[in-house]
Amino acid sequence: MNFFEKDTKTAMEAIKSAQWIAFAPIVFQASLALRDLGILEALEAAKTDGLTLAQIVEKTKLPEYGVRVLVEAGLGIGLLTLNNGVYHMTKTGYFILNDTMTKVNMDFTQDVCYEGMFTLQDSIKQTKPTGLEVFGKWKTVYEALAHLPPKAQQSWFAFDHFYSDGSFPQVLPILFKHKPKHILDIGGNTGKFTLKCLGYDPEVKMTILDLPGQLNMAKKNIEAAGHIKRANFHEINILDDSQKFPKGADIIWMSQFLDCFS
Amino acid sequence: MNFFEKDTKTAMEAIKSAQWIAFAPIVFQASLALRDLGILEALEAAKTDGLTLAQIVEKTKLPEYGVRVLVEAGLGIGLLTLNNGVYHMTKTGYFILNDTMTKVNMDFTQDVCYEGMFTLQDSIKQTKPTGLEVFGKWKTVYEALAHLPPKAQQSWFAFDHFYSDGSFPQVLPILFKHKPKHILDIGGNTGKFTLKCLGYDPEVKMTILDLPGQLNMAKKNIEAAGHIKRANFHEINILDDSQKFPKGADIIWMSQFLDCFS
Repeated sequence: MNFFEKDTKTAMEAIKSAQWIAFAPIVFQASLALRDLGILEALEAAKTDGLTLAQIVEKTKLPEYGVRVLVEAGLGIGLLTLNNGVYHMTKTGYFILNDTMTKVNMDFTQDVCYEGMFTLQDSIKQTKPTGLEVFGKWKTVYEALAHLPPKAQQSWFAFDHFYSDGSFPQVLPILFKHKPKHILDIGGNTGKFTLKCLGYDPEVKMTILDLPGQLNMAKKNIEAAGHIKRANFHEINILDDSQKFPKGADIIWMSQFLDCFS
Repeated sequence: MNFFEKDTKTAMEAIKSAQWIAFAPIVFQASLALRDLGILEALEAAKTDGLTLAQIVEKTKLPEYGVRVLVEAGLGIGLLTLNNGVYHMTKTGYFILNDTMTKVNMDFTQDVCYEGMFTLQDSIKQTKPTGLEVFGKWKTVYEALAHLPPKAQQSWFAFDHFYSDGSFPQVLPILFKHKPKHILDIGGNTGKFTLKCLGYDPEVKMTILDLPGQLNMAKKNIEAAGHIKRANFHEINILDDSQKFPKGADIIWMSQFLDCFS
């Protein structure tokens, strides 16, 4: 990897970047508000005609003062342009509104990370996730997952699945080449990968290894799909070396295990 | 003003910008941690030699895992480069560490705005600063100012003064050209501008108009400077039209009044 070998910015670009970083949380919240309050949507619907401030206020039914502050922020951030009093959405605005990866990342940042990140420096010094207190008393977020507020849980799994789902169709033919009879799905999460396997091969047996909260969610999903007879659920904390895996599987697979542990 | 007429980004630049926005609060907190935990400082001191991960850990006395996560974030954000295992600081890193405006802006964003910005959408809809609850029950931040936690107060005034101080030497000769005997300093804040005037002309009398919390701070500062005899303090809420200004001044001046009211 040699992405990061050179400082490619001029001094002017670097100070612009430093200022952008300095106001980044405000940039983020203003962009999220432009998206979630329907302002970008109204501008997209207006197509090349664009909208005046008064028209945006009328279409969104929002107070004029707040809309004015937001669209002015949108100009600085680069989500909007302004010509003779008419606002248009830029390409960046289009991606904030419509790109699935951007949407999934923004929701995850806001609903899961934003508040907890406030104490990042304490987390680094104490080598523990101090910001997790936002959601209660947990040792790791994995134990908290099944108990998060609905919006945070939804944004977590949308983020998680977005990055793993794309790999499933690519790995299934490789995994099933040698007709495995029994696969361990380490950190099987909500059962998405196990369900794919159960659907791919009507003979295969699957065992999901995860924390109890995740196993409960997986069990519900697999039951709903009618595959419960070929699925086993093994409670384990993978970070605890004293807990052993079940024996006798043909394949041990980590379908959704994140590389984020010290 | 025609800064914002054109969408100047290509689609590739726009999606990169959208992703940057999506993770902006994390970019911000990681940059702040690299600054405040002494990592950028250690890299600056190492000059062109740079530092390995082990050397950064040794110099900062921080846990290795946290340092590794932060320097990897620093590569992505563009604050650091990596060559054969050796980290160096980029120009952007230099500005984050050393540029006064960047420092003042980052402290203000973190200490005053970060937590409150979480509820921006509610503020827009309700036309009131809902995020201010972080600091207690206040109608506006101006009433809260004298009661903020010390760090938040310090960052607020550093931000405020940074943007007003530079104008003082430029406006004083203009203001005093006609030898005013009495100046009203509207929203006089901590008394910085009034003190400049009292120092500039040993005859002038000043009256600061502000909320009681600010007047108390100003009084202390002006007393400490030995100028209290020529200073008056007039309690007023400028946003309340029924409250009148004192009469008989030669100049009415808004030294530090922010343009941020609906």
